[in-house]
Amino acid sequence: MIRTAEELQAACAAIEPASATVMAQAQTKLNNLTKPLGSLGKLEMLAARTCAMRRTIGARVEKKIILTFAGDHGVVAEGISAFPQEVTPQMVLNFLGGGAGVNVLARHVGAEVRVVDVGVAVPIEAEGLRQCKVRPGTANMAKGPAMSIDETVAAIGVGMEMAREAIEDGAEILGTGDMGIGNTTPSAALFAALLPAKVSEVTGRGTGIDDAMLQHKIAVIEQSLAVNQERLDSPLGALAAVGGLEIAAICGCILEAARSKIPVVVDGFISSAGALVAQRFAPHVLDYCFFSHMSAEQGHRIFFEKMGLSPLLHLDLRLGEGTGAALTMNLVEAGLKIMNEMATFGEAGVSEAG
Amino acid sequence: MIRTAEELQAACAAIEPASATVMAQAQTKLNNLTKPLGSLGKLEMLAARTCAMRRTIGARVEKKIILTFAGDHGVVAEGISAFPQEVTPQMVLNFLGGGAGVNVLARHVGAEVRVVDVGVAVPIEAEGLRQCKVRPGTANMAKGPAMSIDETVAAIGVGMEMAREAIEDGAEILGTGDMGIGNTTPSAALFAALLPAKVSEVTGRGTGIDDAMLQHKIAVIEQSLAVNQERLDSPLGALAAVGGLEIAAICGCILEAARSKIPVVVDGFISSAGALVAQRFAPHVLDYCFFSHMSAEQGHRIFFEKMGLSPLLHLDLRLGEGTGAALTMNLVEAGLKIMNEMATFGEAGVSEAG
Repeated sequence: MIRTAEELQAACAAIEPASATVMAQAQTKLNNLTKPLGSLGKLEMLAARTCAMRRTIGARVEKKIILTFAGDHGVVAEGISAFPQEVTPQMVLNFLGGGAGVNVLARHVGAEVRVVDVGVAVPIEAEGLRQCKVRPGTANMAKGPAMSIDETVAAIGVGMEMAREAIEDGAEILGTGDMGIGNTTPSAALFAALLPAKVSEVTGRGTGIDDAMLQHKIAVIEQSLAVNQERLDSPLGALAAVGGLEIAAICGCILEAARSKIPVVVDGFISSAGALVAQRFAPHVLDYCFFSHMSAEQGHRIFFEKMGLSPLLHLDLRLGEGTGAALTMNLVEAGLKIMNEMATFGEAGVSEAG
Repeated sequence: MIRTAEELQAACAAIEPASATVMAQAQTKLNNLTKPLGSLGKLEMLAARTCAMRRTIGARVEKKIILTFAGDHGVVAEGISAFPQEVTPQMVLNFLGGGAGVNVLARHVGAEVRVVDVGVAVPIEAEGLRQCKVRPGTANMAKGPAMSIDETVAAIGVGMEMAREAIEDGAEILGTGDMGIGNTTPSAALFAALLPAKVSEVTGRGTGIDDAMLQHKIAVIEQSLAVNQERLDSPLGALAAVGGLEIAAICGCILEAARSKIPVVVDGFISSAGALVAQRFAPHVLDYCFFSHMSAEQGHRIFFEKMGLSPLLHLDLRLGEGTGAALTMNLVEAGLKIMNEMATFGEAGVSEAG
């Protein structure tokens, strides 16, 4: 478990790029299967990239674990969300009861969901919940920093620890998920601070606010960035000042997956904020990330454009929780099955292109 | 089994629109689940539309059947494909052996693949193959009509019959698939004739031809349209003149799914040509179609734009066979599971938006 910014830095330094050699071997294997070259498009890319991460052309992702991190946000005091803060613990119980969107989609694709309380505002006693609360919700970032640097490092450490545990339990692919009423607000603030981008470009309607509330949300984010201006000159400082506990944990989860050479599916808007911070800490993390979907939340497109990345799915999802990650894990598995189960031209006695 | 153009017309006239009433009931049910309104985007649309097709908010798609129709094309004599015609029967055997892309992806999503010979150029004796050959490949459309009207109606009838049999066997969702060396050529010709569109806009590289062959392919399609010009003034005439046997069967499969109020996933470029003809016969068929993916084959985008439709997946697929249909069936199932398995706000004790 990391405890200091120096230990975090050391963990990040241990992240190696994926293997270009294995990537090429995987593509050669794919090219010999009974289909025109490249005709399974991104499925082939998913398979080859996973092999490159795992350093083997026999990579599999049968064991899938989604880590859904929950945390609250002091900035809800500014009235920026359509739902009340009590929904965060209510949804945590819903996850544990198996009735939420992420549970249904995880079952559909054969993934396990692990729910981690990294910072819900109220105590939750419930079987199956990973109790890793760093603090009961962040402070209101519109008035000062959301968290201290130490708390931020601790929350990153929770994410790393949960990822490490999942990998020790046999996970061959991880997915990130989030729950936290108000968390599109700190995510947009992080995009604005770190991409960087205009606040109005990266701020959207979250769970469903109207035009007036959207203008107010933009003003609150601008105020938060102004109040914290001197803290925004490093990724860790920005994460502490205008981030969130679950966003920090998602960042840690992504870092640990990359350090362990395991693919991680980054869910939607909130998870991408965590991935952005992780990338600023250690650029090679992107070699281990699959970006699930283009969220319907305005601003996600700006993230992808500025990062030069593209997501797999375009289904207008904007739920979070890890719902998009579940669907995308299934595509990664499909790609690997193509690689492992399709007949070659030789095996099937099929003529090759002239 | 339909035998004449009049019987085809009668079958088309029996296709009813999907139920707007049930669509609204389904959306009401979705709106009461523990998620922000509409936050599962197209998954919700897939669920609601399937309910509207089936006339019940309890719709399921557990039993899934992909019908892969194989046929050959006389126009390969013009040298428009990267692969030789012998690959069509070779791939049919690969499908029956379970080693092709569609087999792998169908197993992944729990679908059955049925392979239908509606017009392969050579005889194929193989267990499991549906023997429904109308003729051994089409004639060369660059010299005259690819098929007679009677043959075209018979091939449509094969598709209808195979769909009816699958539905009688319990299929709750169908997928279309194709195999036929050269079949992007007649598909592009049908798009050009019926959308209508410029030949150069809808003609692509198929299984992988170079620039010079692409220019030649465009010229061959233009010649085919010119030679058959007087036959292109009706959808049936165009399908006979510049279509294909498997394309006609796919058209029939879609018509029968719609007549039976069963969802059908239209695979890629070739299947969309079949769907286009089906839509010209009976506009309401589109109520029963899910379009799987935007093919990497140039011209598919023009189809979607001119039809005002949009596909689910953007994965640069261009294999056909029903591979995209398999993946998309899985998304339809995910949408219905969301509808059937997620907790409501009341059940989970979650507060609603203020």
